[in-house]
Amino acid sequence: MSTTKTEPRVLQGTMELLPPDQILFNKMYDTIREVYESFGFLPLDTPVLEYSNVLLAKAGGETEKQIYRFTKGDTDLSMRFDLTVPLARYVSLHKNDLVFPFKRYQMGKVYRGERPQKGRFREFYQCDIDIIGSEALDLMYDAEMPAVIYNVFTKLNFGDFVIRINNRKVLNGFFSSLGLADKIGDILRTIDKLEKIGAEKVMAELSEFGVDGAAADKILAFINIKGTNAEVLAALKAVDCADETFKEGVDELEKVVNYAYMYGIPEKNIAIDLTIARGLDYYTGTVYETKMVDYPALGSVCSGGRYDNLTGYYTDDSLPGIGISIGLTRLFSQLRSENIISDDRKSLVDVLFIPMDKNHIDFVLESAAVIRNAGFKVDVYCLDKGMKPKMKFANRSGIPYVALVGDSEAEAGKIMLKNMESGEQELLTPAEAAEKLKK
Amino acid sequence: MSTTKTEPRVLQGTMELLPPDQILFNKMYDTIREVYESFGFLPLDTPVLEYSNVLLAKAGGETEKQIYRFTKGDTDLSMRFDLTVPLARYVSLHKNDLVFPFKRYQMGKVYRGERPQKGRFREFYQCDIDIIGSEALDLMYDAEMPAVIYNVFTKLNFGDFVIRINNRKVLNGFFSSLGLADKIGDILRTIDKLEKIGAEKVMAELSEFGVDGAAADKILAFINIKGTNAEVLAALKAVDCADETFKEGVDELEKVVNYAYMYGIPEKNIAIDLTIARGLDYYTGTVYETKMVDYPALGSVCSGGRYDNLTGYYTDDSLPGIGISIGLTRLFSQLRSENIISDDRKSLVDVLFIPMDKNHIDFVLESAAVIRNAGFKVDVYCLDKGMKPKMKFANRSGIPYVALVGDSEAEAGKIMLKNMESGEQELLTPAEAAEKLKK
Repeated sequence: MSTTKTEPRVLQGTMELLPPDQILFNKMYDTIREVYESFGFLPLDTPVLEYSNVLLAKAGGETEKQIYRFTKGDTDLSMRFDLTVPLARYVSLHKNDLVFPFKRYQMGKVYRGERPQKGRFREFYQCDIDIIGSEALDLMYDAEMPAVIYNVFTKLNFGDFVIRINNRKVLNGFFSSLGLADKIGDILRTIDKLEKIGAEKVMAELSEFGVDGAAADKILAFINIKGTNAEVLAALKAVDCADETFKEGVDELEKVVNYAYMYGIPEKNIAIDLTIARGLDYYTGTVYETKMVDYPALGSVCSGGRYDNLTGYYTDDSLPGIGISIGLTRLFSQLRSENIISDDRKSLVDVLFIPMDKNHIDFVLESAAVIRNAGFKVDVYCLDKGMKPKMKFANRSGIPYVALVGDSEAEAGKIMLKNMESGEQELLTPAEAAEKLKK
Repeated sequence: MSTTKTEPRVLQGTMELLPPDQILFNKMYDTIREVYESFGFLPLDTPVLEYSNVLLAKAGGETEKQIYRFTKGDTDLSMRFDLTVPLARYVSLHKNDLVFPFKRYQMGKVYRGERPQKGRFREFYQCDIDIIGSEALDLMYDAEMPAVIYNVFTKLNFGDFVIRINNRKVLNGFFSSLGLADKIGDILRTIDKLEKIGAEKVMAELSEFGVDGAAADKILAFINIKGTNAEVLAALKAVDCADETFKEGVDELEKVVNYAYMYGIPEKNIAIDLTIARGLDYYTGTVYETKMVDYPALGSVCSGGRYDNLTGYYTDDSLPGIGISIGLTRLFSQLRSENIISDDRKSLVDVLFIPMDKNHIDFVLESAAVIRNAGFKVDVYCLDKGMKPKMKFANRSGIPYVALVGDSEAEAGKIMLKNMESGEQELLTPAEAAEKLKK
């Protein structure tokens, strides 16, 4: 064995957790998965590695620079940078074997070759759902997305949140009516930054793109329409804009919000917000962001929207879709560093068996199996040590119950079940102990 | 949007599944995770990407050739090729924050730059458990591994299996007593192939390594000792071998097998097999393989063993451990292609709501929520179509129950719950339907 040692470092920009935090992370992961499945989304798990020409069919510019791309033998490979491009590839490849509308979730790691800096990850989990249609998708599906978001963040239970909703057609139509149809992309990307950079800088940036002061004023006034959803919708209908796309957008927005109420989302959790643009070019209708009311600094914790054509780079079919994504690694990391969540449970283990000595190992292992088979997570401490280190192990591990077994317990066919928090202990048969733990 | 299309291919040597198979795969994954957790193993999720010098501290030769390694900016990166090296790195890095014995499971993808061929994967899941000690680990932990294997494969429930167990010390001690102490590595790697290449080729190979015919005969005779565990142990004790390591190994083997019985493993599921050597150099004591009785061609479906020093390349601490690994991608792929398992369930969805029209969407969505909140997976079909395509969607998706809602149902506050297999249908309130589904 070598005697020169390598320093065991973890790659900057990746997240690696100690067990208590990993347990907490997994609980969030499992909650999201459970809600996704409860709405009928099917699981998908595409490879992390793809052929570069396939994965990067659409990419270019900044995205492409961030790709982990390399050759092995004569194969040009890339690591996926999101779950949307692999979905497009998957749907194109397996179209004939899928049933549409195709609802899938995928929760996995994606990779971006970022320079490491605070809050930027090179390897991180995305938790996506998308609904893909083989033909036009009803607006009810646009409302299903906030319904899923509402259920996820209600179950995650770390504070009040608002799903902010808008429709690209409303914005695009309004900008077109101002004669700015050729500048829509630039305007969207600019107003998307409103919250971050403020109105003044937005005005300056708009002017750079050739939007004159009068038009910029109108844009700012328009996206600042505030009020309840009913008030905003009334105001939109009153806007003097004859653009057909605009009218269609307002109509869609109204329908989606009403369906969202029917999905059980309380009014306080869903708000029309005309400043939501989502910078990504491919959104064409409804767009969403989700904000934590008490932690605005977290930014959007779940975003997405509707797009017209998922698979344009792979097939001639035009498949519309709607999707949202939770950036779980970033979210978890922020929640932990702000102490918004903490590990309520350091161990997964429910009961630790501690044999006093080796005399009754058969009884110890049998009893452990009884409690395990009743659905509990059971560990057995097997080192031949004194009681002090044994109890120290239980304490440091944060295990809530200990089952002590010595001669007298084993001879009575019982275990001494001790609640590590209260110190309370009780002599019980393994079956009785399982019953007690169920309460 | 571009008009030249890219062919949507999936990288050779990776596994990508359609939803029914993905559901089946996830069921296996979840079962393994559940058993691992039930024995008190804690979750771990190390990054796929590591610094090359850290990940490859130990590697060399064939392993290193298979690594996906590349530079991005000035960072030399590698994708993990197993979960053991990352564990060694993790334990070395976080030693002061862990509680020992440290029991962890990790289930994730690993990467090997293989030339694609049948049964070889470039990206595949490994499902590992390891127990790491900060000092000597009791032999009871050696028996916990087969206990976990027994529970995993019993719950996976795809046929009879035997956990074959041996101890390196038995082999090493015996070979040393033949004066072959300097050839142990070569001998182990050779006899490990016995089942694959047969006795004749093993003899030939041993001779190449300078093992003379008499010694080779003794080795073959020794590893061919067969019988019940008690018979093999008796035969081992009767072997005329004064080597201390040999005696220690026989003693360990006997203890571990006895503990394994105490863990509830039936005798038919655990068999001492002296041909089991495990090629990997780092095993130093107990070693395991697991074979499906009716499908010997699958090879070992779960293997592992005890090692003396996990972290030697990173720290001066000597940390012993015991671990096993299930290569889930390979296992799943074999089970599917041999039709040993099949998708008993094409969809995760329990109930599909089908509104006859848009008149009662509020009632439909409320009813769907009632059944969803009762713990079921519920989808709502939202496309405005005739009954035929709606029912076709339900059928093709393989959803077991459909809830039909038209005017008369909605006005009665009820849904028509239809069993898609039997055709039976019943008019029920949403709460009644949830009750019925629970049965």
